[in-house]
Amino acid sequence: MEESFDDPSCLSPQAPGCVSPARRQIREVKETKTTINGVTFPLPGEGPEQQLLKPKEWSYCDYFWTDKKDPQGTPSVAGFEVLLQKQLKGKQMQKEMSEFIHERIKIEEEYAKNLSKLSLSPLAAQEEGTLGDAWTQLKKSLHDEAEVHLKFANKLHTEVEKPLLTFRCDNFKKDLKKYDHHIADLRKQLASRYASVEKSRKALADRQKDLEVKTQQLEVKLSNKTEEDIKKARRKSTQAGDDLMRCVDLYNQTQCKWFEEMVTTSMELERLEVERVEWIQQHLRQYTTLRHETDMFNQSMVEPVDQLLQNVDPAKDRELWVRENNTGDVRPVDMDI
Amino acid sequence: MEESFDDPSCLSPQAPGCVSPARRQIREVKETKTTINGVTFPLPGEGPEQQLLKPKEWSYCDYFWTDKKDPQGTPSVAGFEVLLQKQLKGKQMQKEMSEFIHERIKIEEEYAKNLSKLSLSPLAAQEEGTLGDAWTQLKKSLHDEAEVHLKFANKLHTEVEKPLLTFRCDNFKKDLKKYDHHIADLRKQLASRYASVEKSRKALADRQKDLEVKTQQLEVKLSNKTEEDIKKARRKSTQAGDDLMRCVDLYNQTQCKWFEEMVTTSMELERLEVERVEWIQQHLRQYTTLRHETDMFNQSMVEPVDQLLQNVDPAKDRELWVRENNTGDVRPVDMDI
Repeated sequence: MEESFDDPSCLSPQAPGCVSPARRQIREVKETKTTINGVTFPLPGEGPEQQLLKPKEWSYCDYFWTDKKDPQGTPSVAGFEVLLQKQLKGKQMQKEMSEFIHERIKIEEEYAKNLSKLSLSPLAAQEEGTLGDAWTQLKKSLHDEAEVHLKFANKLHTEVEKPLLTFRCDNFKKDLKKYDHHIADLRKQLASRYASVEKSRKALADRQKDLEVKTQQLEVKLSNKTEEDIKKARRKSTQAGDDLMRCVDLYNQTQCKWFEEMVTTSMELERLEVERVEWIQQHLRQYTTLRHETDMFNQSMVEPVDQLLQNVDPAKDRELWVRENNTGDVRPVDMDI
Repeated sequence: MEESFDDPSCLSPQAPGCVSPARRQIREVKETKTTINGVTFPLPGEGPEQQLLKPKEWSYCDYFWTDKKDPQGTPSVAGFEVLLQKQLKGKQMQKEMSEFIHERIKIEEEYAKNLSKLSLSPLAAQEEGTLGDAWTQLKKSLHDEAEVHLKFANKLHTEVEKPLLTFRCDNFKKDLKKYDHHIADLRKQLASRYASVEKSRKALADRQKDLEVKTQQLEVKLSNKTEEDIKKARRKSTQAGDDLMRCVDLYNQTQCKWFEEMVTTSMELERLEVERVEWIQQHLRQYTTLRHETDMFNQSMVEPVDQLLQNVDPAKDRELWVRENNTGDVRPVDMDI
């Protein structure tokens, strides 16, 4: 609330009769600012129009000045807290993404294990010739596929899972805590300074009231107060006014300090968030690259099978088998008498 | 053994003294054929050179005339049996290949199940904005991959496993048994005919011996045998000769019948084998085609993820988040006195 310490009466609406025209003026001065939780804002529509510090950028430094309202509508959580929580949540997100990739890795390893095991199967091992060769290669190709998937799993681990997990080591949380405490301390200081302002404002009001009463008493000669008493009261009033000025000054300095820290730190958090998003994007693209590669390698494992199947030749197989298994090529002849 | 029923003495080497010059000639005639297990073959180097029925084709009908020798060297298993066993083994091979494919199907279904389950994971579901969209699509892509693998499994079942299993239904084995019994019966007949030949050959030898003895006895007037007795003995000898001719004739007819059936049936088995090999080749090529397709479809499941990752925009995400979560854009101002 705007106060003028030249006019003590704006705090004493109970004595309407002794209000001078000058005093009446002051009561009509509008409140143009409000202090909430120690921070002073212009009221809506009051004061010069504010331009965003970073227009069109939706920057953190422009949007988190007020404290966040609780469900009952009371501003309770610092805007900075909201920014901080976002960063902490971001770290949680990267951890969960890493877990997800870990689960994928396990699935790939299981798949590879099963394919490898089946590739060793003796089923139809007795098939011979060109068909047998093709079949043998088909079985082997399962092991080749398994290798591809194992390689995929390993690369997922080193190029996606691990980086996601270890990006921003544990010092990150400590750093965030430091920011948190620093800003919180500045708010506490600000609150404290504001309390001092309120206290000195009240002290001034008391001194002014006292001066007014004494002046009135002098006018109606109600007491034996001397001019000396009034001078003393006036001096105290002036002193109280000086105190208030000093308090307001200190308050504004502190608010200014907090303001600067807010801008600097919220910009840092903004930068960290951009870095986080880009870093995750980069590593998820690595995931898709590995997926592409894997499917391509996997496809190529079928090539040798295709080749051998193309070479399957029943005539050749017959020759091979007949050479190996024939019982005799001399044909029977008629018996003679 | 070549026999001439004009000369009974080739069976009685025990009476050297009464051998006429004519008889001595016959003893020097070579054996040019041999009968093994009822089948008659030319001896090595004897008789006109045989050309293969189907030169350069390694045809079954050229190479399975002799019975297969057992470890002791005794011919015991018909060549035809060897061909039949090959066909039965072929059926076993296709069954085992079918089983192998079945195992692959199970592995694919397990893999699909695991991917699908993981795709539903809530990990990092709280990530928002363009990064959140990319992450959501990444998780969904696992389900898309699962669908691709399930489709692969299903097609493997209908286009490879099932055909391999049901190719040549159970009637096939019955048909093979029919061939088997038919050929075996003809061999039995042949053996029986051969036994008759041997029996009549012996009967002839006995009659000739009898005639010889009686003729000698007449010359030295050792007995009271009349010319009549010799005529009777000579008639019986001639009759035995006729019997032998008939037996040999029947034998040759039967061998000829068996020969023809062998050629026809072994050609059929050869055709069945070519058909089997080509049919398996065709269906294994279907397997590789499905593998190719699967890897291609799988790769394409990553495209939408790539697209969204490309669109990840930290600035946009900041705007979205700030619009949603900002606490106030009015900046603090100095407190007035």
